Amino acid sequence: MAWVAPSLENLIQEFMKFPSIGRKSAERMAFHLLRAERKDAEALAQAMLEVKDKILNCSQCFSLSEQEPCSLCADPNRDQTIICIVENPLDIVAFEKAGGYRGLYHVLGGCLSPLGGITADDLNIDALMRRLEALPVGEAILAMNPSVEGEATALYMARLLKARGLKVSRIGLGLPMGSSLEYADSNTLKKALEGRRGMET
Amino acid sequence: MAWVAPSLENLIQEFMKFPSIGRKSAERMAFHLLRAERKDAEALAQAMLEVKDKILNCSQCFSLSEQEPCSLCADPNRDQTIICIVENPLDIVAFEKAGGYRGLYHVLGGCLSPLGGITADDLNIDALMRRLEALPVGEAILAMNPSVEGEATALYMARLLKARGLKVSRIGLGLPMGSSLEYADSNTLKKALEGRRGMET
Repeated sequence: MAWVAPSLENLIQEFMKFPSIGRKSAERMAFHLLRAERKDAEALAQAMLEVKDKILNCSQCFSLSEQEPCSLCADPNRDQTIICIVENPLDIVAFEKAGGYRGLYHVLGGCLSPLGGITADDLNIDALMRRLEALPVGEAILAMNPSVEGEATALYMARLLKARGLKVSRIGLGLPMGSSLEYADSNTLKKALEGRRGMET
Repeated sequence: MAWVAPSLENLIQEFMKFPSIGRKSAERMAFHLLRAERKDAEALAQAMLEVKDKILNCSQCFSLSEQEPCSLCADPNRDQTIICIVENPLDIVAFEKAGGYRGLYHVLGGCLSPLGGITADDLNIDALMRRLEALPVGEAILAMNPSVEGEATALYMARLLKARGLKVSRIGLGLPMGSSLEYADSNTLKKALEGRRGMET
């Protein structure tokens, strides 16, 4: 593409490596950067390298943190008797944003996927078992995504954890708040029916 | 937001400065970068700064280029008798990708917007007039966007250029290829009717 200057084309290609950034978005980002001040570009470049240098996986929960252990694992006010097991560090961010949960977390680092070649050995399960021995955890919440792989992983983990005498639950699946029954897909409706709860009046 | 490490939050904020990148996309980009190799982050940082250092506005057409003048202005094979006037450098990329046009370009750098405080003095119109004196241009294609401001700018430019004896045309407005008449908005349909052309059979 001779009509885009080589260094600009190079930057566009770099931006296109991000997930869900296509050619158009990458072009728009590159042109935005061109219009910005040089110091803004420097700030972004600096921020990127800083993240690579500073952020590490917490050795306890495998979340991302600048400290070891992370601030959640180090917090003595978190409830040590309950642990929420998630696929990815971003899931913790989502829960903490939502608020209402004061227990521990554990990041599996993905979910079982026989087709993708991801087995139990690739997930942070051994580390979870070691944590459960050291901590007074009595209950585990399985918060994998409501996908085929997520459900399979939840089932696998439920068996593993129940065998250790833990109380195990799966996060509620059903209609999201603000949605409309009319437009819900049938799998969601099935889950919503299965997950119906008695009402206190 | 204490649950996101400071350097990570900083990077997310930096990504959010890009157009059409919200919190979610910025988070996804930051986590992508975390998973990538450090050399990939370095390559991106390098590409960003290189663009800031190398890319300049062509003094002729005000497009973006590493050379002065840009490769399009320097190309002796481009038709010097026709000039296509666009709002932004990205518009040139779009035309060159589409192919079929072999003339010159001129970037106005925006369009007239009385509400936005952009007057004719803010656009590269004087420079265009100087180019027209030096070049054997006989025809101008007005390729501003089909917006209220774009139309107004096209009208303004048409009067200016016709007064200099140029043949002036506006790019075709109407239904985009592959679209459906049923879902077209009424302004587009009006333009499509106005822009109807005789058919050669």
